[in-house]
Amino acid sequence: MSIVDIIEKKKYGNHLTEEEIKNIVFGYTDGKIPDYQMSAFLMAVWFKGMDENELAIFTKAMIDSGKTIDLSRIEGIKVDKHSSGGVADTVTIPLIPIVASLGVPACKMSGRGLGHTGGTIDKLESIPGFRTEISIEEFVNIVNRIKGAIISQSNELVPADKKIYALRDVTSTVDSIPLIASSIMSKKIAAGTDAIVLDVKVGNGAFMQDLDSALKLATAMVNIGQSLNRNTVAYITDMNQPLGNAIGNSIEIIEAIDILKGNGSQRLFEVIETLGAEMLRLGGVVDTMEEGKALVKKAIKDGSALKKFEEIIEAQGGNKEIIYNTSLLPQAKFKKDVIAAQSGYINRIDAKGLGKLAQFLGAGRERKDEVIDLSVGLFFNKKIGDKVEKGEPIGTILANDATKLEEALNRVMKLFEVVETPTSPPPLIYYRVSKEGVQKLF
Amino acid sequence: MSIVDIIEKKKYGNHLTEEEIKNIVFGYTDGKIPDYQMSAFLMAVWFKGMDENELAIFTKAMIDSGKTIDLSRIEGIKVDKHSSGGVADTVTIPLIPIVASLGVPACKMSGRGLGHTGGTIDKLESIPGFRTEISIEEFVNIVNRIKGAIISQSNELVPADKKIYALRDVTSTVDSIPLIASSIMSKKIAAGTDAIVLDVKVGNGAFMQDLDSALKLATAMVNIGQSLNRNTVAYITDMNQPLGNAIGNSIEIIEAIDILKGNGSQRLFEVIETLGAEMLRLGGVVDTMEEGKALVKKAIKDGSALKKFEEIIEAQGGNKEIIYNTSLLPQAKFKKDVIAAQSGYINRIDAKGLGKLAQFLGAGRERKDEVIDLSVGLFFNKKIGDKVEKGEPIGTILANDATKLEEALNRVMKLFEVVETPTSPPPLIYYRVSKEGVQKLF
Repeated sequence: MSIVDIIEKKKYGNHLTEEEIKNIVFGYTDGKIPDYQMSAFLMAVWFKGMDENELAIFTKAMIDSGKTIDLSRIEGIKVDKHSSGGVADTVTIPLIPIVASLGVPACKMSGRGLGHTGGTIDKLESIPGFRTEISIEEFVNIVNRIKGAIISQSNELVPADKKIYALRDVTSTVDSIPLIASSIMSKKIAAGTDAIVLDVKVGNGAFMQDLDSALKLATAMVNIGQSLNRNTVAYITDMNQPLGNAIGNSIEIIEAIDILKGNGSQRLFEVIETLGAEMLRLGGVVDTMEEGKALVKKAIKDGSALKKFEEIIEAQGGNKEIIYNTSLLPQAKFKKDVIAAQSGYINRIDAKGLGKLAQFLGAGRERKDEVIDLSVGLFFNKKIGDKVEKGEPIGTILANDATKLEEALNRVMKLFEVVETPTSPPPLIYYRVSKEGVQKLF
Repeated sequence: MSIVDIIEKKKYGNHLTEEEIKNIVFGYTDGKIPDYQMSAFLMAVWFKGMDENELAIFTKAMIDSGKTIDLSRIEGIKVDKHSSGGVADTVTIPLIPIVASLGVPACKMSGRGLGHTGGTIDKLESIPGFRTEISIEEFVNIVNRIKGAIISQSNELVPADKKIYALRDVTSTVDSIPLIASSIMSKKIAAGTDAIVLDVKVGNGAFMQDLDSALKLATAMVNIGQSLNRNTVAYITDMNQPLGNAIGNSIEIIEAIDILKGNGSQRLFEVIETLGAEMLRLGGVVDTMEEGKALVKKAIKDGSALKKFEEIIEAQGGNKEIIYNTSLLPQAKFKKDVIAAQSGYINRIDAKGLGKLAQFLGAGRERKDEVIDLSVGLFFNKKIGDKVEKGEPIGTILANDATKLEEALNRVMKLFEVVETPTSPPPLIYYRVSKEGVQKLF
């Protein structure tokens, strides 16, 4: 069957065979199918989607387009975690040491960020000396020795995704649930772990703006994982306000340390507690979520999680002293408080707006080749439902440019809506999606 | 607005502005917009369509991408005609001399054929010496002198359509009503006549398979014409069986001559009569279709239409003797009768199948660079509703290759369905679509 016929079939919503899907994925990766046919195909997928079976085959073909990582030398059930991305989403950095300290091999491969702040890899590079470009051999050795590591995702995985993603970006086919699901899952599966926990963010600061889309994405990813023999569980969590208190890079490292010390944002902790318990369950350490959550709390309380973070930093060449002296992290020249302009209750926070403000200060990049300013960012200690008094400091802006600082101060208050009558916070964890089905949690 | 944003807007079914449409058409023609963005845009149009206003602007932008023809030196209201293409669709060749003989400047620019048989230009090239590559200046002079000419469409018209059509062909975006309508109408309008008569074929031998699609296409084209100040009328006519009796090139010239002599297929004549009457009405020669039809019949009866064909052949350098001695046209080596295998009534004819059989014999081309065999083809004197007797000859196959002739004889009878009980022919003319609306005619 010719490529035009495959496009035609998808355009009319007909089921594609395994051979047809492989033809299009391998043909495109090999350069036999030109961009203009692939973009027409992707637009047809945008309109007609892919069913469960097509999507599993499509994802498998993407994985098979390149190398995969063999983690079989690591003992135990290896677990990975992925977030669909949000603002003040400081989950991974404390989560990996917590889980590792409890005996689950936490094999985390992360990316750099595009957009409002850096990715986990950028944030970790705030730690002087911390190496993220580590060979798979060394990665395996570290995880076997101390149970956890966070490294930069190999560029050799899933070349099909790289090529397809670059094309989607310029043809308005990014926002397609099957294409997002296959892009994420192909990389997670190629990375070689046995189980995967997914954190699908929903709300004004997330890619998925509504619960329905988030549920569809979570379901698609869980189905792909299960079809390709990876035990996969997804949580849909709130992103209608920043999750933690810090938005930036080094200041998110500080909040990660706070969490490991039993402090930090309560909402951020609750997401870490749930995802951590799930990773412990998938890793075979506990049977129930309740046991898992109790262990997470214990690991923080007895200091073993913080100790594990120290070990990970050391194993990856970083200066572990930052844990006890955060002034060793990159520091911004200017710090200025954000002062509440009126009294009342916070009713709405424009999370994406805050993320963009952090990017404006230099904390994020628009293009891959831009350099991030690791020291700048925003910090807020108020969330939706909180009371504020006129004149009260509700946060801090960290900047290296006085003009940008002033502009940020002018823009920031428009991103908070304060009302006179008491308000309540949005739910935090909406759904758990697993092979057993969808469980409502709010 | 960036091209990605324009694709996004169309993808969500939002109305594009004039500036956005011009950006995409001119940007693509100039090479500033790459194929992969245009193909994503075209696929979004396939799904979301274009409204009347967008389509008129899109067509105008396509016209403005290249040169247009100035026919102002021709006196009178100039009328053109276009058919969406079918099998045994021998309308243009007799129609132009009929209309010209009655005083309407019939300025016909035709294309070569792709598919089952040649186009009008290929068919005319069966006439020894006939020139179709004629300059606009000479074309204007001929029409001013004898009121009619049929020339090959200039390659300089509507470069945007050439580029877009080539891309549609390889990205499964050919079968989109707004894209078909704008492709046809941009060329017709750029060709410079004042009025246009469209023949939209519907049925198993046509591009449009159902009445609903044909009506949509006709309406879209009439709306474009009216929006761009061309008086446009479309007829939807039947293509559930070959229209005329001859399928090929030189044998269609013979049927054209038959029609001008008052013979030939009755159904073919009726379509010519209707389209001719409409051209006379649009050309201001008559006020009503009835008067127009009477004049068409008169022009045939008194021989003036045949005389006009002679003049046109002579003006374009052809040998007018072919009118009286058709053996001067290319002749096939083998002729063999098709014999009815059973008695009964013809219930169904696979018109597209017959077209493909003619192509198999050499009468049509698959690729632009293939050479057509002008002498071969098929001839049938039976239509749906006709009675046939077992053993009776119902047609003839003309071939230059004995093996192909035998295979064609084997395949041909499967394309006719003969039943025992009497059948009736399908309607011939379904609708007339004009600025006044849709008129049902069956």
